[in-house]
Amino acid sequence: MSGIKLPRAVSDLVTSFEKLPGVGPKSAQRLVFYLLHNPDHELQSFAENLLKLKKNTVLCEVCHNVSETNPCPVCADEGRDETMLCVVEQPLDVLAIERSGAFKGRYHVLHGVIAPLNNIGPDQLYLHDLVKRLDEVEEVVLATNPTMEGEATALYITEYLEQQGKTGNGGVTVSRIGHGLPIGADIEYADGMTLSRALEGRRKL
Amino acid sequence: MSGIKLPRAVSDLVTSFEKLPGVGPKSAQRLVFYLLHNPDHELQSFAENLLKLKKNTVLCEVCHNVSETNPCPVCADEGRDETMLCVVEQPLDVLAIERSGAFKGRYHVLHGVIAPLNNIGPDQLYLHDLVKRLDEVEEVVLATNPTMEGEATALYITEYLEQQGKTGNGGVTVSRIGHGLPIGADIEYADGMTLSRALEGRRKL
Repeated sequence: MSGIKLPRAVSDLVTSFEKLPGVGPKSAQRLVFYLLHNPDHELQSFAENLLKLKKNTVLCEVCHNVSETNPCPVCADEGRDETMLCVVEQPLDVLAIERSGAFKGRYHVLHGVIAPLNNIGPDQLYLHDLVKRLDEVEEVVLATNPTMEGEATALYITEYLEQQGKTGNGGVTVSRIGHGLPIGADIEYADGMTLSRALEGRRKL
Repeated sequence: MSGIKLPRAVSDLVTSFEKLPGVGPKSAQRLVFYLLHNPDHELQSFAENLLKLKKNTVLCEVCHNVSETNPCPVCADEGRDETMLCVVEQPLDVLAIERSGAFKGRYHVLHGVIAPLNNIGPDQLYLHDLVKRLDEVEEVVLATNPTMEGEATALYITEYLEQQGKTGNGGVTVSRIGHGLPIGADIEYADGMTLSRALEGRRKL
């Protein structure tokens, strides 16, 4: 047909954008042509921010959250409740729970969930040093997502802590974050799984 | 509530992504945390591709398409039909028409449409030098999008060429790209505007 192609510099950047999750070839092209109309200094600062991302951040050695300091502000804060430990999948989950203001303990970030289909087992997660953090802890709250993988990971951690002899008499209590109807939702439109969880999780008034 | 914030390097990159069209705060965060798990060299090449984008491309002086060379391959190609000139909104439109293989003439890229609500008038488009390109041209095909702004721009260009005395006896013919049902579409689900355009544009068999 025709030999007209995108300039190399354009197609290279399209390729970079295509690698991002949720960005297809068409939207990658659209983003690149949008950037073509941007002033040079905007592109420069975008590029600098990309390079800074990993240089200026570390994973906290204690909780594995993304942070500027090691240990991170939560782990360094002596005022937090040391008896509560909340296990989450991702750094953004920490932020969401912090925004709620309902949790005053510490965190443990797994950086993923057990997903055999993607070849992610327990060894690919930051799980090995969870046991070492339990000396002062009385309750471990498993706040992985209510998805298939999140549930499986929560189950795995429960059994793992049992095997390690950390639960039971004198050990830690393991709890799962509550499931049910989100605030503001409509029972009429709720899916069956959520409703059955909401009924299971009913509380006396 | 809580003073826990995203590290500066993370929030800076989130800001960069948020500036892109169609990327909200949530998806920007998701993209940045995805990139955090990428190897350094991926981020490096993403940043380099951003910096290369404007350094290694130019706008063709003749048709204003984005290109590595000036004039661009289409304008430099002596084999193209000089009597046909296709006016499009964006460089990607050139690519789409080239892929169809149905047009052998040359292009003129406006880099936008007339949009008074966004303060874009004819002077903000690459329209001023269209008139100078008409010496060999017999037909100008207006292939702006079938949107409100695209239609208005096509109308404006038609009247502008008339005013400049380029149309009429011995001048160029101005045509509009055909509108109607896309191939593979279903009349049952077509919107009224498209159907009325399809009926207006009916052809004898």
